[in-house]
Amino acid sequence: MSFSRIFDYARETDCILILQGTENSVDKTFFYLTGVEGGLFEGSALVVTPDELKIITSPLEEELARSTGYEVQLFETRKEFEEIIKKNLKDKSTVGLNYTALTLNRYKDLLRIAPDKEFIDVSGSIMEARRMKSPEELSRIREAARIGSRAFENLLDKFKEGMTESEVSSLIAYEMMKLGASEPSFSTIVAFGENASMPHYSPGSRKLKKNDTVLIDFGARYRRYCSDITRTFVFGRASQQQKEMYEVVKEAQDASLKVIRENANGRDVDLAARKVIDSSKFKGRFIHSLGHGVGLDVHDHPALSPNLDFPLKSNMVVTDEPGVYVPKVGGVRIEDDVVVTKDGFELITTATRDLIEVS
Amino acid sequence: MSFSRIFDYARETDCILILQGTENSVDKTFFYLTGVEGGLFEGSALVVTPDELKIITSPLEEELARSTGYEVQLFETRKEFEEIIKKNLKDKSTVGLNYTALTLNRYKDLLRIAPDKEFIDVSGSIMEARRMKSPEELSRIREAARIGSRAFENLLDKFKEGMTESEVSSLIAYEMMKLGASEPSFSTIVAFGENASMPHYSPGSRKLKKNDTVLIDFGARYRRYCSDITRTFVFGRASQQQKEMYEVVKEAQDASLKVIRENANGRDVDLAARKVIDSSKFKGRFIHSLGHGVGLDVHDHPALSPNLDFPLKSNMVVTDEPGVYVPKVGGVRIEDDVVVTKDGFELITTATRDLIEVS
Repeated sequence: MSFSRIFDYARETDCILILQGTENSVDKTFFYLTGVEGGLFEGSALVVTPDELKIITSPLEEELARSTGYEVQLFETRKEFEEIIKKNLKDKSTVGLNYTALTLNRYKDLLRIAPDKEFIDVSGSIMEARRMKSPEELSRIREAARIGSRAFENLLDKFKEGMTESEVSSLIAYEMMKLGASEPSFSTIVAFGENASMPHYSPGSRKLKKNDTVLIDFGARYRRYCSDITRTFVFGRASQQQKEMYEVVKEAQDASLKVIRENANGRDVDLAARKVIDSSKFKGRFIHSLGHGVGLDVHDHPALSPNLDFPLKSNMVVTDEPGVYVPKVGGVRIEDDVVVTKDGFELITTATRDLIEVS
Repeated sequence: MSFSRIFDYARETDCILILQGTENSVDKTFFYLTGVEGGLFEGSALVVTPDELKIITSPLEEELARSTGYEVQLFETRKEFEEIIKKNLKDKSTVGLNYTALTLNRYKDLLRIAPDKEFIDVSGSIMEARRMKSPEELSRIREAARIGSRAFENLLDKFKEGMTESEVSSLIAYEMMKLGASEPSFSTIVAFGENASMPHYSPGSRKLKKNDTVLIDFGARYRRYCSDITRTFVFGRASQQQKEMYEVVKEAQDASLKVIRENANGRDVDLAARKVIDSSKFKGRFIHSLGHGVGLDVHDHPALSPNLDFPLKSNMVVTDEPGVYVPKVGGVRIEDDVVVTKDGFELITTATRDLIEVS
């Protein structure tokens, strides 16, 4: 990845400052621009111009920073950090910041360190750049999708009556990491039976019973890039209700996938799925957007949503994940990841989308 | 946990607004105040006064939000969200915000939604409150520490020549989750041999060789609370150099643990460890702070650091983690979690701190 392509999007400035926060305020743009695969780089910074990228970090990450080949400037105290920032911004009048990732306290610090600069918001341009995946990014996302799909298949013969949602969650993490994932790309959702009615449920001690619905929403992180997959199946024999719910969701996914291609609008993709669900007995029970971008973040950017004007472009990666949720009863979601192409899409999550009855 | 105790610290206001961000800008204070164990609550908010706590969220998290027993207000669009915020702040003149967790874009939105309010930074007060762990918080952290320690012990007989760092990382995740962790509390560091010289190394495909140093920095998340443990051992027989490095680090940890008690200063705890290392042949090779707070975050707050004036109080939980790093050669770190008590500390990570030779 070449850092300088960011200025094809951020044309409003020739200097971008990325301030990395802590575990709760991570700017993935730091990793997008440097390509560095290891490390946390908490409290570190990047100064990027069309000609150079400088990594400002502590001795803690020095070896990793140097492995990128970019210039590295080291600080040990906050005061040294501030001096380095000041020096790097010296000849700049306008400095671009990523407003969506910068916390207010760090911004206030910056106003104190460099009071004479004009700071502008380049978060829109950064997001625009990050939406278009490079061949290298696509190959990492494809591998994350492959790992997730394979891990799910490996899991299927391990289900036993009485096992807990948490156990399933530990198994899928293990299977993905065995296949090369660095970690799950987010906290896995495993919901048995009626718990599947909560889209963001956290796995607990609920034990698997015969004929339970099992909903698993999971993904792999591979060289920092994510996949995001949901499969719903039945442990035992599917009831008429489970079959109906599943078929509606699958039909909604099929209908929406057909709309995906370069220049299609994300809103229309969402509506294609929503129409199927809202003309079924599950009207109104699809309570979230159809899909989002996937990349360095699991939710990389909004994409397929009823109120969003979003033209799809080739080499974007989006999820397609319709769902139906009935409180106290259960739910179904099917989620796949696709690369948008000129004439349609490439499905990169390969685990079967048919209703499985696991016994 | 009672939400109203936050006003024992944030005395400067009678209204706090917590705006939850996305996966990259999480305000754990949302979970601290509500106690809710599941869910993401991206884009949700809390309005907190001494008398009540309101959860403002989307239908996606409705069931989880209601399970807390607090008042829930639902929105489907950003516009509805903004209306609800506006209404809740109507009679307030001063509103406290968590500046360390609030991103600049959301703050700018807020200035537009409620232009007549005085917003003040209560992040210091929030951090002060969160540093003092309640009995319920302590019991969750103790369990996270127990799970981590037990998982490490379970791991010891699984090491084989030729296994990769990534495999070890998947195994420790699996062991912790089997024991009840919801997930690893952060991306596990597994470093073999010379890779142990990088404190924030990410596990890769390096294969385990006879007499390698193995450094594992890992932790469990249990009901949202973290543990954070590092163990370094030798796969085979320890060389003279490995033994020397280990003994210096262990001696540094012992010396610093002796200083920990209520009203001791974190700076002096750090210096006790640093003195041991800097009077050995590894002078200057301890390149980070001695320890940090642990809680909802792995790095919950700064604590033991050479340049930090930090008086320890009973019921704080901190790590004690001296290390020595020699580029191209390797490193040793030993990290334990302790609860500060009136007369000393309670060690809650129980895995042995002696140098182990695994065969």
